[in-house]
Amino acid sequence: MIIDKLYNEVEKKGSICVGLDTDISYIPKKYFEDNKVLSDVIFEFNKDIIDSTKDLVAIYKLQIAYYEKAGIQGLIAYSKTLEYLKSQNILSIGDIKRGDIAATADAYCSAHFEGKFEADFITLSPYMGFDTIEPFMDQIKNNEKGVFVLVRTSNPGAKDIEELRVDEEFVYDKVATGLEAMSAETMGECGYSSIGAVVGGTNPEELQKIRQKYKKLFFLIPGYGAQGGEADVLVGLDENHNGAIVNSSRGIITNHQKHDSDDVKKYSRLAVESMREDLKVGL
Amino acid sequence: MIIDKLYNEVEKKGSICVGLDTDISYIPKKYFEDNKVLSDVIFEFNKDIIDSTKDLVAIYKLQIAYYEKAGIQGLIAYSKTLEYLKSQNILSIGDIKRGDIAATADAYCSAHFEGKFEADFITLSPYMGFDTIEPFMDQIKNNEKGVFVLVRTSNPGAKDIEELRVDEEFVYDKVATGLEAMSAETMGECGYSSIGAVVGGTNPEELQKIRQKYKKLFFLIPGYGAQGGEADVLVGLDENHNGAIVNSSRGIITNHQKHDSDDVKKYSRLAVESMREDLKVGL
Repeated sequence: MIIDKLYNEVEKKGSICVGLDTDISYIPKKYFEDNKVLSDVIFEFNKDIIDSTKDLVAIYKLQIAYYEKAGIQGLIAYSKTLEYLKSQNILSIGDIKRGDIAATADAYCSAHFEGKFEADFITLSPYMGFDTIEPFMDQIKNNEKGVFVLVRTSNPGAKDIEELRVDEEFVYDKVATGLEAMSAETMGECGYSSIGAVVGGTNPEELQKIRQKYKKLFFLIPGYGAQGGEADVLVGLDENHNGAIVNSSRGIITNHQKHDSDDVKKYSRLAVESMREDLKVGL
Repeated sequence: MIIDKLYNEVEKKGSICVGLDTDISYIPKKYFEDNKVLSDVIFEFNKDIIDSTKDLVAIYKLQIAYYEKAGIQGLIAYSKTLEYLKSQNILSIGDIKRGDIAATADAYCSAHFEGKFEADFITLSPYMGFDTIEPFMDQIKNNEKGVFVLVRTSNPGAKDIEELRVDEEFVYDKVATGLEAMSAETMGECGYSSIGAVVGGTNPEELQKIRQKYKKLFFLIPGYGAQGGEADVLVGLDENHNGAIVNSSRGIITNHQKHDSDDVKKYSRLAVESMREDLKVGL
């Protein structure tokens, strides 16, 4: 199961997930020199971040919205970055939050688990129900793939649906319970399922409760840094300092801008190192 | 407001939405001749369907999953098809079901309302809350754009979240009510908001109830034909035979295959004509 690979990476390197949410505005001028095509500009920026941080990072997450914003060239860069990660034996998440059913979900599955946009994990949105996850099960069981499904996010709008109360529980509990129920055939040796959960990091009390309640679900925790989570996210990890990855995107990939520098390699690594201290990796 | 344009199209041509869910396997061999690049193969198949049906069709919907499945070439075809519809002054829906917040939603907004993948309407998934819709409001209000938000779909999984009961209502009622509450600045002269709802067509009783309850929401009704909705979807329309579009995808774009023919123009038109009779357009 792919989740065992992720568990091992976290054991070796700590829980850091770097979000390559690469907006063109983050990329220093030097990357645009020599009339490079935009896909190469974006890819080489990503590659510099990967190369300078990969010994400290468990997994990289690509938010596809930024690549769609850059059009066809952006999606070529998305594809090339995933290909590069694969060639380096580094794990990847396609943060696509797709959520559809039947033949449409099959098409997404082909696109993001096999095709041009192949990633090790993708994110899914469960609004339409658990049959949005079903079409991905074969790939999860047989081909070393995994998903992170939206459960409890930390934006203000979480109250609108996720936190509605149903039978003394929240809607997000129904989702988490359903994901655990689907885990029989997707459990790894590490004790977690390859069907994981996205759980926000800005409310530590709630994160801790959810961590204790859903022990089979590996968490993807966004919200560190730019979204204000900070070290409190530690309560989302288990007693082995595993079972979750903590994502930081802008905090790492725009750190050079904060220092008025075009040295992306240096400043992305410094940001990862500081995040390591914050998350007490190796301590 | 863009919704007025859609209302007028429905008034003129009836409620038919054709879904260009173009899987490569639907495309006859003749389109692949002359070593055409795949993007042109897909685009020309789409163009033939559009050209032969546009006088009878209110709006075309492109399910992006099929284009993502075909990789970069697929997304070039997606872009070219939307561009062609725009050049012909025909309305389009990008069926992308994205659902994200803040800077990420802004990036999706750029990609699908301005950039290479510009459509008149897009579909959104509300799981993370109403702040998934907020970033699209400026474009809706100022630049003639619209959205259809998932409310009540007709797949079996609808029971998992959409139909959970909260305070004597369903989760989907909370969504629909929230969408109506957002409509103050997005109402068209036709009496509908440019923030519409996706409501499934396979349960006529429920569709009728939802139609009567949420009078400001224009409906996108999938599930006709391939998904088993048939003419019962008529209860989703208002007393003027407007206020909703009914989508058929495979029923129209694979009709040539049912007749062992490669005449896509002829058979897509025949399928649309038969759908018109079913939906009593012009009667």
